[in-house]
Amino acid sequence: MDGRTRQASPAAANGRSLDPTADAPAGRVHAKQSAFYQRLFHRLFPQIDMPFRILLWNGEEFATAAGEPIASVHFRDRAAFLRLLLQPDLAFGDAYSDGRIEVEGDLIAFLERVYRAQPAPASVDFLRRCLAGWWVRPSANSANGSRRNIHHHYDLGNEFYRLWLDDQLVYTCAYFPNPDAGLDVAQTAKMDHVCRKLWLRPGENVVEAGCGWGSLARHMARDYGVTVTAYNISKEQIAYARKRAKAEGLADRVHYVEDDYRNISGRFDAFVSVGMLEHVGPPHYRELGSVIQRCLKPTGRGLIHSIGRNFAAPTSPWLEKRIFPGSYMPCLREIMDVFEPMEFSVLDVENLRLHYAKTLEHWLRRFEAVADQVEKMFDQRLVRAWRLYLAASLAGFTTGFMQLFQVVFAPATNNEIAWTRSRVYNPSANS
Amino acid sequence: MDGRTRQASPAAANGRSLDPTADAPAGRVHAKQSAFYQRLFHRLFPQIDMPFRILLWNGEEFATAAGEPIASVHFRDRAAFLRLLLQPDLAFGDAYSDGRIEVEGDLIAFLERVYRAQPAPASVDFLRRCLAGWWVRPSANSANGSRRNIHHHYDLGNEFYRLWLDDQLVYTCAYFPNPDAGLDVAQTAKMDHVCRKLWLRPGENVVEAGCGWGSLARHMARDYGVTVTAYNISKEQIAYARKRAKAEGLADRVHYVEDDYRNISGRFDAFVSVGMLEHVGPPHYRELGSVIQRCLKPTGRGLIHSIGRNFAAPTSPWLEKRIFPGSYMPCLREIMDVFEPMEFSVLDVENLRLHYAKTLEHWLRRFEAVADQVEKMFDQRLVRAWRLYLAASLAGFTTGFMQLFQVVFAPATNNEIAWTRSRVYNPSANS
Repeated sequence: MDGRTRQASPAAANGRSLDPTADAPAGRVHAKQSAFYQRLFHRLFPQIDMPFRILLWNGEEFATAAGEPIASVHFRDRAAFLRLLLQPDLAFGDAYSDGRIEVEGDLIAFLERVYRAQPAPASVDFLRRCLAGWWVRPSANSANGSRRNIHHHYDLGNEFYRLWLDDQLVYTCAYFPNPDAGLDVAQTAKMDHVCRKLWLRPGENVVEAGCGWGSLARHMARDYGVTVTAYNISKEQIAYARKRAKAEGLADRVHYVEDDYRNISGRFDAFVSVGMLEHVGPPHYRELGSVIQRCLKPTGRGLIHSIGRNFAAPTSPWLEKRIFPGSYMPCLREIMDVFEPMEFSVLDVENLRLHYAKTLEHWLRRFEAVADQVEKMFDQRLVRAWRLYLAASLAGFTTGFMQLFQVVFAPATNNEIAWTRSRVYNPSANS
Repeated sequence: MDGRTRQASPAAANGRSLDPTADAPAGRVHAKQSAFYQRLFHRLFPQIDMPFRILLWNGEEFATAAGEPIASVHFRDRAAFLRLLLQPDLAFGDAYSDGRIEVEGDLIAFLERVYRAQPAPASVDFLRRCLAGWWVRPSANSANGSRRNIHHHYDLGNEFYRLWLDDQLVYTCAYFPNPDAGLDVAQTAKMDHVCRKLWLRPGENVVEAGCGWGSLARHMARDYGVTVTAYNISKEQIAYARKRAKAEGLADRVHYVEDDYRNISGRFDAFVSVGMLEHVGPPHYRELGSVIQRCLKPTGRGLIHSIGRNFAAPTSPWLEKRIFPGSYMPCLREIMDVFEPMEFSVLDVENLRLHYAKTLEHWLRRFEAVADQVEKMFDQRLVRAWRLYLAASLAGFTTGFMQLFQVVFAPATNNEIAWTRSRVYNPSANS
């Protein structure tokens, strides 16, 4: 309504003129309407100063900035545009999924430019930063909440994930020994990377929190001679993991438990969690730390692998509501809540951001190759939502908006830690 | 005075009996006096439950707990004991330096046991943790304060450090390719480790903040083909560094600047700071971050090497007042103040705690070998103070009370970062 008032004023009509591109199909008759939306757009997204072509439902268009447009964003109806002004992230995701917004051109390049226009941490005020971990949390990660949240994402069906993940069904960042390595090679290399960092030795026992379809647990048992107890609250994943362990003759060395990480019991040589911290939520980090402290022997080691951020910031509401309920990407400062209160020493942090971008390139390509099958399993809406989710994640990692942290830690008093990291890179070396 | 009241009461006399060791020289006549001090000791150090023999000035003694004593602590006068009760850390350090307290037995083992008796972070209340960075700061690290503080420690004289440091005069944690490597080898290996982590390439320019006697700057220029601008506010160190660079024919590639890190100017491919953050102080971390942001190119990388802690805690008042004015050992959460506000990505954190313990073993051994010469240069008090400082640091690292963090970082948008860390471990490898 404020917008309407402005539209009527001479200032609004004259303030910011249309980009006078020669080939613009916008009729002169409608110039005022298009100018109004352009003005509205700039008022609400002052940080977006890059050239997109915005196509409106009535055939009009405007450019967001001078220069060759990176992409065209087509709004199929007025409501899709107006909702964007109220809740940009959620409305864009929903309207894109519904096909009411179409991005014509390079979706990833478009998303990269949007990420790059995000405000820097210095301009995010103190209170907002403090609240970042809490203000987007409609889906609390209590034991029951976690079960519901995890079901939402992971129980879309093993068949769905089998269509486009690697053979081992590893749904976390891979480790590419070189950028040209294939996805299967890189997922196996990631598992080896994790096992070497943990310095696993035959006969040790390992607990895994959030084991997905169980690939890492089987890998550790098979290739490193350890016994593994692996927790997960996704029914479908656990069923698949058990079946596969049995088929591979590993059932006696890998024990899959359908339960919450809070219920881990026993004492272990190593704790590992790959891609679970994102679902734990900062209010529960201390609790996770105390679970690890309780279950780790004095000479134990641990590894947590998680998506993160460079500074505390809220999760995308669309991602949090539609794709990953209860998810949050912590910065290292926040992750320290797991370690500090329990007096763990952080031994090693590695940021594998570009490896996740590469992983997502593979996933997106594989997903597009089976999009028709996915549409038949679900519908066009799910295909578009997942396309956006995978492309936005890829753009998030390439732009440095998102990080991937692998953190190795141990009780502060454990002096039986690897002397150097060279064993990770030269597995046959002695030191 | 409260103690006297207690001494007079029957409860005090009967409460905690003397350890009835057969060979105790304590006369029965003085039993009450010794029992009073024992009771006082336990009241004020309830966390110390390990067996030390406490020898008093009057020939009496008591044991702090049952069992074979780890060491004997000899108080030469009553004041040394009583001051300990008021300001334990500062009073112990001062009285030890003065020879009014003697530790008979293994000083390092004794200090290790004291460290292990420190309260865990969970028992340190929230407010104390928040205040930890600020409450011990009589020596603010403003530009002038820093100059005064640095002068106190580093300008003891190059001759002093030359007596017991390695040939290159490297006064920071070394990197031992294996635990048996010599100190010279390990200091050179540390410099290579830093250079490889920074992925230095010939022709690049590097800025170093806090360059000590300039060894790393010369190493980078000589072995990695870069030009270096190295800042330090210690007059003596800078003079030595310039002379040595000239003698080694490196004067055209290494420029030593006697100035504060806050005055760094120019744009560089790499920023490096080894052992300076301890002197910066948490209130100045953000300022340091903005200096780095200002001076680093978009494709730049940085490395900060610093002593740290597993959780925020105050500096030892003795260390802060007598050895390193203005020093503070931050935890990773605090170190993030350098990186987060400037949107740096943390790429790699390595904890080299046990390497610092090993470095200190070498330093302490070499220091003891020249203790007579040091006493002639200064006095017995300085010898004892430095013995305690080196031994306490060694014990701090072996017990996990202190950490050594090497943090590699880059601007969030820099995608020209090393693909993996394997180059650090296999320098001839391609990826």
